[in-house]
Amino acid sequence: MPRYFFELSYAGKAYHGWQKQPGSQTVQGEIESVLNTLFPSSSLQVTGCGRTDTGVHAKHYFLHVDFAVSIDENDTKYRLNKMLPDDIAIHQIVEVDNEKHARFSARERTYRYFIHKQKDPFQKDYSLYFPYPLDLDKMNEACQYLIGRQEFTSFSKLHTDVKTDYCVVSEAKWLQTGPNELYFEIKADRFLRNMVRAIVGTLLDVGQGKHQVSDFKKILSARDRSEASRSAPAHGLHLWKISY
Amino acid sequence: MPRYFFELSYAGKAYHGWQKQPGSQTVQGEIESVLNTLFPSSSLQVTGCGRTDTGVHAKHYFLHVDFAVSIDENDTKYRLNKMLPDDIAIHQIVEVDNEKHARFSARERTYRYFIHKQKDPFQKDYSLYFPYPLDLDKMNEACQYLIGRQEFTSFSKLHTDVKTDYCVVSEAKWLQTGPNELYFEIKADRFLRNMVRAIVGTLLDVGQGKHQVSDFKKILSARDRSEASRSAPAHGLHLWKISY
Repeated sequence: MPRYFFELSYAGKAYHGWQKQPGSQTVQGEIESVLNTLFPSSSLQVTGCGRTDTGVHAKHYFLHVDFAVSIDENDTKYRLNKMLPDDIAIHQIVEVDNEKHARFSARERTYRYFIHKQKDPFQKDYSLYFPYPLDLDKMNEACQYLIGRQEFTSFSKLHTDVKTDYCVVSEAKWLQTGPNELYFEIKADRFLRNMVRAIVGTLLDVGQGKHQVSDFKKILSARDRSEASRSAPAHGLHLWKISY
Repeated sequence: MPRYFFELSYAGKAYHGWQKQPGSQTVQGEIESVLNTLFPSSSLQVTGCGRTDTGVHAKHYFLHVDFAVSIDENDTKYRLNKMLPDDIAIHQIVEVDNEKHARFSARERTYRYFIHKQKDPFQKDYSLYFPYPLDLDKMNEACQYLIGRQEFTSFSKLHTDVKTDYCVVSEAKWLQTGPNELYFEIKADRFLRNMVRAIVGTLLDVGQGKHQVSDFKKILSARDRSEASRSAPAHGLHLWKISY
Protein backbone atom coordinates (compact mmCIF):
# COMPACT_ATOMS: atom_id res chain seq x y z
CA MET A 1 0.00 0.00 0.00
CA PRO A 2 1.74 3.19 -1.16
CA ARG A 3 2.05 5.82 1.56
CA TYR A 4 1.71 9.53 0.85
CA PHE A 5 2.59 12.57 2.89
CA PHE A 6 0.32 15.60 2.57
CA GLU A 7 1.72 19.00 3.47
CA LEU A 8 -1.15 21.29 4.44
CA SER A 9 -2.25 24.27 6.48
CA TYR A 10 -5.48 25.22 8.17
CA ALA A 11 -7.14 28.07 10.02
CA GLY A 12 -8.47 26.54 13.21
CA LYS A 13 -11.32 28.92 14.05
CA ALA A 14 -14.12 26.70 12.72
CA TYR A 15 -12.78 23.42 14.13
CA HIS A 16 -12.74 21.47 17.36
CA GLY A 17 -9.07 20.86 16.75
CA TRP A 18 -7.36 18.32 14.54
CA GLN A 19 -8.58 15.04 15.92
CA LYS A 20 -11.73 13.32 14.68
CA GLN A 21 -14.58 13.25 17.21
CA PRO A 22 -18.12 12.09 16.65
CA GLY A 23 -20.51 15.02 16.34
CA SER A 24 -17.80 17.70 16.10
CA GLN A 25 -16.32 19.44 13.12
CA THR A 26 -12.60 18.65 13.10
CA VAL A 27 -9.84 19.07 10.52
CA GLN A 28 -9.13 15.34 10.38
CA GLY A 29 -12.83 14.57 9.99
CA GLU A 30 -13.17 17.11 7.18
CA ILE A 31 -10.18 15.74 5.26
CA GLU A 32 -11.18 12.09 5.66
CA SER A 33 -14.71 12.87 4.52
CA VAL A 34 -13.48 14.59 1.35
CA LEU A 35 -10.88 11.87 0.67
CA ASN A 36 -13.50 9.15 0.92
CA THR A 37 -15.80 11.06 -1.42
CA LEU A 38 -12.97 11.26 -3.94
CA PHE A 39 -11.93 7.60 -3.45
CA PRO A 40 -15.26 5.98 -2.59
CA SER A 41 -14.24 2.32 -2.76
CA SER A 42 -11.60 2.60 -0.03
CA SER A 43 -12.05 3.54 3.60
CA LEU A 44 -9.17 5.95 4.00
CA GLN A 45 -7.89 7.14 7.34
CA VAL A 46 -5.27 9.83 7.80
CA THR A 47 -2.62 10.07 10.50
CA GLY A 48 -1.61 13.58 11.53
CA CYS A 49 1.73 14.82 12.85
CA GLY A 50 0.04 15.82 16.10
CA ARG A 51 -3.15 17.05 17.71
CA THR A 52 -3.99 20.69 17.76
CA ASP A 53 -6.60 21.97 20.21
CA THR A 54 -9.88 23.68 19.37
CA GLY A 55 -9.23 26.94 17.55
CA VAL A 56 -5.47 26.49 17.13
CA HIS A 57 -4.08 27.11 13.64
CA ALA A 58 -1.52 25.18 11.61
CA LYS A 59 0.63 27.10 9.18
CA HIS A 60 2.54 23.89 8.47
CA TYR A 61 1.13 20.42 9.03
CA PHE A 62 1.81 16.92 7.72
CA LEU A 63 -0.37 13.86 7.58
CA HIS A 64 0.16 10.45 6.01
CA VAL A 65 -2.35 8.17 4.34
CA ASP A 66 -1.99 4.72 2.81
CA PHE A 67 -3.76 4.25 -0.51
CA ALA A 68 -4.62 0.89 -2.06
CA VAL A 69 -2.95 1.90 -5.32
CA SER A 70 -0.73 4.71 -6.57
CA ILE A 71 -2.42 8.07 -7.05
CA ASP A 72 -1.74 11.05 -9.28
CA GLU A 73 -0.35 13.51 -6.73
CA ASN A 74 -1.10 16.74 -8.58
CA ASP A 75 -4.56 15.72 -9.71
CA THR A 76 -5.47 14.54 -6.19
CA LYS A 77 -4.17 17.76 -4.66
CA TYR A 78 -6.13 19.84 -7.17
CA ARG A 79 -9.39 17.94 -6.59
CA LEU A 80 -9.04 17.89 -2.81
CA ASN A 81 -8.44 21.64 -2.69
CA LYS A 82 -11.53 22.19 -4.81
CA MET A 83 -13.64 20.12 -2.41
CA LEU A 84 -12.15 21.20 0.91
CA PRO A 85 -13.40 24.41 2.58
CA ASP A 86 -11.29 27.54 2.15
CA ASP A 87 -9.77 27.21 5.64
CA ILE A 88 -7.94 23.96 4.77
CA ALA A 89 -5.35 23.90 1.97
CA ILE A 90 -3.23 20.99 0.69
CA HIS A 91 0.11 22.35 -0.55
CA GLN A 92 1.89 19.19 -1.60
CA ILE A 93 1.40 15.44 -1.86
CA VAL A 94 4.47 13.18 -2.10
CA GLU A 95 4.91 9.42 -1.95
CA VAL A 96 7.18 8.28 0.91
CA ASP A 97 8.65 5.06 2.31
CA ASN A 98 6.24 3.04 4.40
CA GLU A 99 8.48 3.49 7.43
CA LYS A 100 8.00 7.24 7.39
CA HIS A 101 5.26 8.16 9.87
CA ALA A 102 3.68 11.63 10.07
CA ARG A 103 3.72 11.59 13.87
CA PHE A 104 6.54 9.28 14.99
CA SER A 105 9.09 10.35 12.38
CA ALA A 106 8.76 14.05 13.25
CA ARG A 107 11.97 15.19 14.97
CA GLU A 108 11.03 18.69 15.95
CA ARG A 109 7.93 20.86 16.17
CA THR A 110 7.83 24.66 16.25
CA TYR A 111 4.95 26.72 17.57
CA ARG A 112 4.48 30.47 17.41
CA TYR A 113 2.14 32.54 19.54
CA PHE A 114 1.31 35.98 18.11
CA ILE A 115 0.38 39.11 20.03
CA HIS A 116 -0.60 42.58 18.83
CA LYS A 117 -0.83 45.53 21.18
CA GLN A 118 -2.94 47.86 19.07
CA LYS A 119 -6.47 46.80 18.12
CA ASP A 120 -6.35 45.49 14.56
CA PRO A 121 -9.41 44.10 12.74
CA PHE A 122 -7.20 42.18 10.31
CA GLN A 123 -5.37 40.24 13.02
CA LYS A 124 -8.36 39.42 15.20
CA ASP A 125 -8.55 35.74 14.23
CA TYR A 126 -4.81 34.98 14.22
CA SER A 127 -3.19 36.92 17.04
CA LEU A 128 -4.06 37.87 20.62
CA TYR A 129 -4.94 41.53 21.20
CA PHE A 130 -3.07 42.35 24.40
CA PRO A 131 -2.79 46.12 25.00
CA TYR A 132 -0.99 45.94 28.37
CA PRO A 133 2.71 46.79 28.91
CA LEU A 134 5.08 43.81 28.81
CA ASP A 135 8.68 43.53 29.99
CA LEU A 136 10.09 41.47 27.15
CA ASP A 137 13.53 41.15 28.75
CA LYS A 138 12.06 39.50 31.83
CA MET A 139 9.93 37.21 29.67
CA ASN A 140 13.02 36.14 27.73
CA GLU A 141 14.96 35.65 30.95
CA ALA A 142 12.23 33.29 32.17
CA CYS A 143 12.32 31.46 28.81
CA GLN A 144 15.85 30.23 29.59
CA TYR A 145 14.42 27.88 32.22
CA LEU A 146 12.37 26.12 29.55
CA ILE A 147 15.41 24.93 27.59
CA GLY A 148 16.51 21.28 27.92
CA ARG A 149 14.93 17.96 28.84
CA GLN A 150 12.49 18.15 31.73
CA GLU A 151 8.98 17.35 32.84
CA PHE A 152 6.44 19.99 31.78
CA THR A 153 3.67 18.75 34.09
CA SER A 154 3.02 22.30 35.34
CA PHE A 155 2.11 23.34 31.79
CA SER A 156 0.11 20.27 30.83
CA LYS A 157 -3.60 19.59 30.74
CA LEU A 158 -4.58 17.29 33.60
CA HIS A 159 -5.69 13.70 33.02
CA THR A 160 -4.21 13.16 29.60
CA ASP A 161 -3.17 9.71 28.49
CA VAL A 162 0.51 10.37 27.73
CA LYS A 163 3.09 8.09 29.34
CA THR A 164 5.62 10.77 30.17
CA ASP A 165 5.68 14.53 30.66
CA TYR A 166 9.30 14.85 29.53
CA CYS A 167 9.95 17.12 26.54
CA VAL A 168 13.20 18.44 25.12
CA VAL A 169 12.84 22.15 24.42
CA SER A 170 15.62 23.42 22.14
CA GLU A 171 14.46 27.02 21.74
CA ALA A 172 12.06 29.39 23.51
CA LYS A 173 12.10 33.14 22.92
CA TRP A 174 10.01 36.26 22.39
CA LEU A 175 10.63 38.45 19.37
CA GLN A 176 9.40 41.98 18.79
CA THR A 177 8.58 42.35 15.08
CA GLY A 178 7.09 45.85 15.10
CA PRO A 179 6.15 48.61 17.54
CA ASN A 180 2.93 46.75 18.36
CA GLU A 181 3.67 43.19 17.33
CA LEU A 182 5.52 40.32 18.93
CA TYR A 183 5.53 36.57 18.98
CA PHE A 184 6.76 33.70 21.10
CA GLU A 185 8.56 30.85 19.36
CA ILE A 186 9.16 27.48 20.96
CA LYS A 187 10.79 24.36 19.49
CA ALA A 188 10.71 20.90 21.04
CA ASP A 189 10.74 17.22 20.15
CA ARG A 190 7.18 16.95 21.49
CA PHE A 191 4.57 19.04 23.30
CA LEU A 192 2.02 18.10 25.93
CA ARG A 193 -1.60 19.09 25.52
CA ASN A 194 -2.17 22.79 26.18
CA MET A 195 1.54 23.23 26.95
CA VAL A 196 2.33 26.21 24.74
CA ARG A 197 -0.76 28.15 25.75
CA ALA A 198 -0.08 27.50 29.46
CA ILE A 199 3.55 28.64 29.04
CA VAL A 200 2.46 31.78 27.15
CA GLY A 201 -0.18 32.63 29.76
CA THR A 202 2.41 32.31 32.53
CA LEU A 203 5.06 34.29 30.62
CA LEU A 204 2.52 37.10 30.03
CA ASP A 205 2.11 37.27 33.81
CA VAL A 206 5.91 37.52 34.14
CA GLY A 207 5.89 40.31 31.55
CA GLN A 208 3.28 42.22 33.54
CA GLY A 209 5.13 41.75 36.83
CA LYS A 210 2.47 39.46 38.31
CA HIS A 211 5.17 36.79 38.57
CA GLN A 212 8.90 37.27 39.07
CA VAL A 213 11.36 35.44 36.83
CA SER A 214 12.26 33.29 39.84
CA ASP A 215 8.56 32.42 40.28
CA PHE A 216 8.56 31.08 36.75
CA LYS A 217 11.41 28.73 37.63
CA LYS A 218 9.51 27.54 40.72
CA ILE A 219 6.30 26.97 38.75
CA LEU A 220 8.17 24.82 36.24
CA SER A 221 9.91 22.81 38.99
CA ALA A 222 6.66 22.30 40.91
CA ARG A 223 5.32 19.86 38.29
CA ASP A 224 1.84 21.00 39.28
CA ARG A 225 -0.60 22.55 36.79
CA SER A 226 -2.30 24.60 39.50
CA GLU A 227 0.90 26.65 39.92
CA ALA A 228 0.88 28.05 36.38
CA SER A 229 -1.26 30.90 35.06
CA ARG A 230 -4.35 30.66 32.90
CA SER A 231 -3.71 29.44 29.36
CA ALA A 232 -3.52 32.09 26.65
CA PRO A 233 -6.45 31.95 24.16
CA ALA A 234 -6.23 29.47 21.29
CA HIS A 235 -6.52 31.87 18.35
CA GLY A 236 -3.01 33.33 18.82
CA LEU A 237 -1.35 29.91 18.52
CA HIS A 238 0.01 28.49 15.28
CA LEU A 239 1.73 25.18 14.71
CA TRP A 240 4.47 26.71 12.59
CA LYS A 241 6.88 24.04 11.40
CA ILE A 242 7.45 20.27 11.55
CA SER A 243 10.89 18.85 10.82
CA TYR A 244 11.54 15.23 9.85
CA MET B 1 -19.74 72.29 18.37
CA PRO B 2 -16.21 70.87 18.32
CA ARG B 3 -15.56 68.55 15.37
CA TYR B 4 -13.41 65.46 15.68
CA PHE B 5 -11.83 63.22 13.07
CA PHE B 6 -11.62 59.51 13.88
CA GLU B 7 -9.03 57.43 12.08
CA LEU B 8 -10.17 53.82 12.01
CA SER B 9 -10.07 50.51 10.20
CA TYR B 10 -12.53 47.68 9.80
CA ALA B 11 -12.83 44.18 8.40
CA GLY B 12 -15.91 44.25 6.20
CA LYS B 13 -16.94 40.59 6.25
CA ALA B 14 -19.71 40.97 8.84
CA TYR B 15 -21.16 44.22 7.46
CA HIS B 16 -23.52 45.41 4.75
CA GLY B 17 -20.97 48.08 3.95
CA TRP B 18 -20.30 51.39 5.63
CA GLN B 19 -23.60 53.18 5.28
CA LYS B 20 -26.36 52.94 7.85
CA GLN B 21 -29.44 51.05 6.66
CA PRO B 22 -32.45 50.04 8.72
CA GLY B 23 -32.39 46.34 9.55
CA SER B 24 -28.82 45.74 8.36
CA GLN B 25 -25.59 45.55 10.28
CA THR B 26 -23.34 48.31 8.94
CA VAL B 27 -20.11 49.88 10.16
CA GLN B 28 -21.67 53.34 10.49
CA GLY B 29 -24.62 51.89 12.39
CA GLU B 30 -22.32 50.01 14.76
CA ILE B 31 -20.19 53.06 15.51
CA GLU B 32 -23.15 55.41 16.01
CA SER B 33 -24.81 52.93 18.33
CA VAL B 34 -21.69 52.63 20.51
CA LEU B 35 -21.09 56.42 20.47
CA ASN B 36 -24.63 57.09 21.61
CA THR B 37 -24.30 54.55 24.39
CA LEU B 38 -21.16 56.32 25.55
CA PHE B 39 -22.68 59.83 25.18
CA PRO B 40 -26.35 59.14 25.92
CA SER B 41 -27.60 62.70 26.15
CA SER B 42 -26.61 63.62 22.59
CA SER B 43 -27.82 62.13 19.34
CA LEU B 44 -24.54 61.75 17.53
CA GLN B 45 -24.23 61.08 13.83
CA VAL B 46 -21.00 60.32 12.05
CA THR B 47 -20.00 61.30 8.51
CA GLY B 48 -17.68 58.88 6.74
CA CYS B 49 -15.08 59.61 4.07
CA GLY B 50 -16.99 57.44 1.63
CA ARG B 51 -19.23 54.41 1.25
CA THR B 52 -17.78 50.98 1.06
CA ASP B 53 -19.90 48.12 -0.30
CA THR B 54 -20.96 44.98 1.51
CA GLY B 55 -17.92 42.92 2.51
CA VAL B 56 -15.31 45.49 1.47
CA HIS B 57 -12.57 46.24 4.04
CA ALA B 58 -11.04 49.52 5.13
CA LYS B 59 -7.43 49.51 6.25
CA HIS B 60 -7.61 53.29 6.56
CA TYR B 61 -10.83 55.23 7.05
CA PHE B 62 -11.82 58.62 8.43
CA LEU B 63 -15.07 59.89 9.83
CA HIS B 64 -16.02 63.15 11.48
CA VAL B 65 -18.47 63.79 14.27
CA ASP B 66 -19.58 67.00 15.98
CA PHE B 67 -19.83 66.80 19.74
CA ALA B 68 -21.76 69.24 21.94
CA VAL B 69 -18.69 69.78 24.12
CA SER B 70 -15.01 68.94 24.03
CA ILE B 71 -14.13 65.30 24.68
CA ASP B 72 -11.04 63.56 26.06
CA GLU B 73 -9.65 62.02 22.87
CA ASN B 74 -7.63 59.22 24.43
CA ASP B 75 -10.25 58.22 26.94
CA THR B 76 -12.96 58.20 24.27
CA LYS B 77 -10.80 56.13 21.93
CA TYR B 78 -10.05 53.66 24.71
CA ARG B 79 -13.70 53.27 25.71
CA LEU B 80 -14.97 53.03 22.14
CA ASN B 81 -12.46 50.30 21.30
CA LYS B 82 -13.55 48.36 24.37
CA MET B 83 -17.20 48.55 23.28
CA LEU B 84 -16.80 48.09 19.54
CA PRO B 85 -16.53 44.56 18.09
CA ASP B 86 -13.05 43.26 17.25
CA ASP B 87 -13.51 43.94 13.53
CA ILE B 88 -13.69 47.74 14.02
CA ALA B 89 -10.76 49.63 15.57
CA ILE B 90 -10.38 53.35 16.29
CA HIS B 91 -6.71 54.32 15.92
CA GLN B 92 -6.82 58.03 16.61
CA ILE B 93 -9.20 60.84 17.51
CA VAL B 94 -8.19 64.45 16.82
CA GLU B 95 -10.05 67.73 17.00
CA VAL B 96 -10.20 69.57 13.66
CA ASP B 97 -11.50 72.84 12.23
CA ASN B 98 -15.21 72.85 11.53
CA GLU B 99 -14.50 73.38 7.84
CA LYS B 100 -12.72 70.04 7.57
CA HIS B 101 -15.14 67.42 6.26
CA ALA B 102 -14.40 63.68 6.25
CA ARG B 103 -15.87 63.25 2.78
CA PHE B 104 -15.59 66.58 0.96
CA SER B 105 -12.12 67.51 2.19
CA ALA B 106 -10.59 64.21 1.04
CA ARG B 107 -8.28 64.89 -1.92
CA GLU B 108 -7.37 61.38 -2.91
CA ARG B 109 -8.47 57.83 -2.17
CA THR B 110 -6.39 54.69 -2.69
CA TYR B 111 -7.82 51.19 -3.02
CA ARG B 112 -5.96 47.90 -3.18
CA TYR B 113 -7.29 44.61 -4.48
CA PHE B 114 -5.38 41.54 -3.29
CA ILE B 115 -5.03 38.22 -5.09
CA HIS B 116 -3.28 34.99 -4.07
CA LYS B 117 -2.68 32.17 -6.50
CA GLN B 118 -2.07 29.35 -4.05
CA LYS B 119 -4.87 28.30 -1.67
CA ASP B 120 -4.12 29.90 1.71
CA PRO B 121 -6.41 29.53 4.73
CA PHE B 122 -4.96 32.66 6.34
CA GLN B 123 -5.79 34.92 3.40
CA LYS B 124 -9.28 33.61 2.69
CA ASP B 125 -11.13 36.62 4.12
CA TYR B 126 -8.85 39.36 2.78
CA SER B 127 -7.68 38.36 -0.68
CA LEU B 128 -9.18 36.62 -3.74
CA TYR B 129 -7.97 33.08 -4.40
CA PHE B 130 -7.37 33.08 -8.14
CA PRO B 131 -5.26 30.09 -9.28
CA TYR B 132 -5.36 30.84 -13.03
CA PRO B 133 -2.42 32.18 -15.09
CA LEU B 134 -2.38 35.95 -15.54
CA ASP B 135 -0.39 38.08 -17.98
CA LEU B 136 0.57 40.93 -15.69
CA ASP B 137 2.25 42.95 -18.47
CA LYS B 138 -0.97 43.03 -20.46
CA MET B 139 -2.97 43.97 -17.38
CA ASN B 140 -0.59 46.85 -16.67
CA GLU B 141 -0.72 47.93 -20.30
CA ALA B 142 -4.52 48.13 -20.02
CA CYS B 143 -4.18 50.10 -16.77
CA GLN B 144 -2.65 53.00 -18.70
CA TYR B 145 -6.05 53.76 -20.23
CA LEU B 146 -7.48 54.37 -16.78
CA ILE B 147 -5.21 57.33 -16.04
CA GLY B 148 -6.61 60.85 -16.30
CA ARG B 149 -10.00 62.52 -16.07
CA GLN B 150 -12.79 60.62 -17.78
CA GLU B 151 -16.23 59.12 -17.31
CA PHE B 152 -16.14 55.67 -15.69
CA THR B 153 -19.76 54.79 -16.55
CA SER B 154 -18.67 51.38 -17.88
CA PHE B 155 -17.38 50.48 -14.45
CA SER B 156 -20.19 51.94 -12.38
CA LYS B 157 -23.21 50.39 -10.77
CA LEU B 158 -26.34 51.35 -12.68
CA HIS B 159 -28.97 53.69 -11.24
CA THR B 160 -26.89 55.43 -8.65
CA ASP B 161 -27.68 58.94 -7.62
CA VAL B 162 -24.36 60.60 -8.44
CA LYS B 163 -24.41 63.71 -10.61
CA THR B 164 -21.38 62.87 -12.70
CA ASP B 165 -19.38 59.80 -13.66
CA TYR B 166 -16.13 61.75 -14.09
CA CYS B 167 -13.19 60.68 -11.93
CA VAL B 168 -9.53 61.64 -12.07
CA VAL B 169 -7.40 58.51 -11.77
CA SER B 170 -3.78 59.36 -10.95
CA GLU B 171 -2.40 55.84 -10.60
CA ALA B 172 -3.48 52.31 -11.57
CA LYS B 173 -1.08 49.38 -11.53
CA TRP B 174 -0.61 45.72 -10.63
CA LEU B 175 2.27 44.68 -8.40
CA GLN B 176 3.60 41.19 -7.84
CA THR B 177 4.69 40.90 -4.20
CA GLY B 178 5.59 37.21 -4.10
CA PRO B 179 5.53 34.13 -6.33
CA ASN B 180 1.82 33.68 -5.56
CA GLU B 181 0.74 37.13 -4.44
CA LEU B 182 -0.19 40.31 -6.26
CA TYR B 183 -2.33 43.35 -5.82
CA PHE B 184 -3.91 46.11 -7.85
CA GLU B 185 -3.56 49.69 -6.61
CA ILE B 186 -5.66 52.54 -7.87
CA LYS B 187 -5.70 56.19 -6.76
CA ALA B 188 -8.34 58.76 -7.69
CA ASP B 189 -10.06 61.87 -6.43
CA ARG B 190 -13.31 59.88 -6.21
CA PHE B 191 -14.72 56.48 -7.11
CA LEU B 192 -18.12 55.43 -8.40
CA ARG B 193 -20.02 52.63 -6.73
CA ASN B 194 -18.58 49.22 -7.58
CA MET B 195 -15.95 50.88 -9.79
CA VAL B 196 -12.80 49.18 -8.46
CA ARG B 197 -14.32 45.72 -8.43
CA ALA B 198 -15.66 46.15 -11.99
CA ILE B 199 -12.23 47.35 -13.18
CA VAL B 200 -10.48 44.44 -11.43
CA GLY B 201 -12.93 41.90 -12.89
CA THR B 202 -12.31 43.28 -16.39
CA LEU B 203 -8.52 43.43 -15.94
CA LEU B 204 -8.53 39.78 -14.78
CA ASP B 205 -10.19 38.92 -18.10
CA VAL B 206 -7.44 40.85 -19.90
CA GLY B 207 -4.84 38.90 -17.89
CA GLN B 208 -6.43 35.62 -18.93
CA GLY B 209 -6.61 36.62 -22.61
CA LYS B 210 -10.44 36.77 -22.61
CA HIS B 211 -10.12 40.44 -23.55
CA GLN B 212 -7.35 42.11 -25.53
CA VAL B 213 -5.74 45.29 -24.22
CA SER B 214 -7.49 47.15 -27.04
CA ASP B 215 -10.84 45.70 -25.89
CA PHE B 216 -10.23 47.24 -22.49
CA LYS B 217 -9.85 50.65 -24.10
CA LYS B 218 -13.09 50.12 -26.01
CA ILE B 219 -14.98 49.01 -22.90
CA LEU B 220 -13.88 52.16 -21.08
CA SER B 221 -14.85 54.42 -23.98
CA ALA B 222 -18.25 52.73 -24.41
CA ARG B 223 -19.54 54.28 -21.16
CA ASP B 224 -21.82 51.25 -20.85
CA ARG B 225 -21.72 48.93 -17.82
CA SER B 226 -22.83 45.92 -19.87
CA GLU B 227 -19.53 46.03 -21.79
CA ALA B 228 -17.37 45.35 -18.75
CA SER B 229 -16.77 41.99 -17.07
CA ARG B 230 -18.28 40.73 -13.84
CA SER B 231 -17.13 42.52 -10.73
CA ALA B 232 -14.43 40.84 -8.69
CA PRO B 233 -15.66 39.60 -5.26
CA ALA B 234 -15.78 42.11 -2.40
CA HIS B 235 -13.47 40.37 0.09
CA GLY B 236 -10.28 41.12 -1.91
CA LEU B 237 -10.93 44.89 -1.84
CA HIS B 238 -9.48 47.25 0.76
CA LEU B 239 -9.90 50.98 1.05
CA TRP B 240 -6.22 51.58 1.69
CA LYS B 241 -5.53 55.25 2.16
CA ILE B 242 -7.32 58.65 2.31
CA SER B 243 -5.37 61.84 1.81
CA TYR B 244 -6.58 65.26 2.91
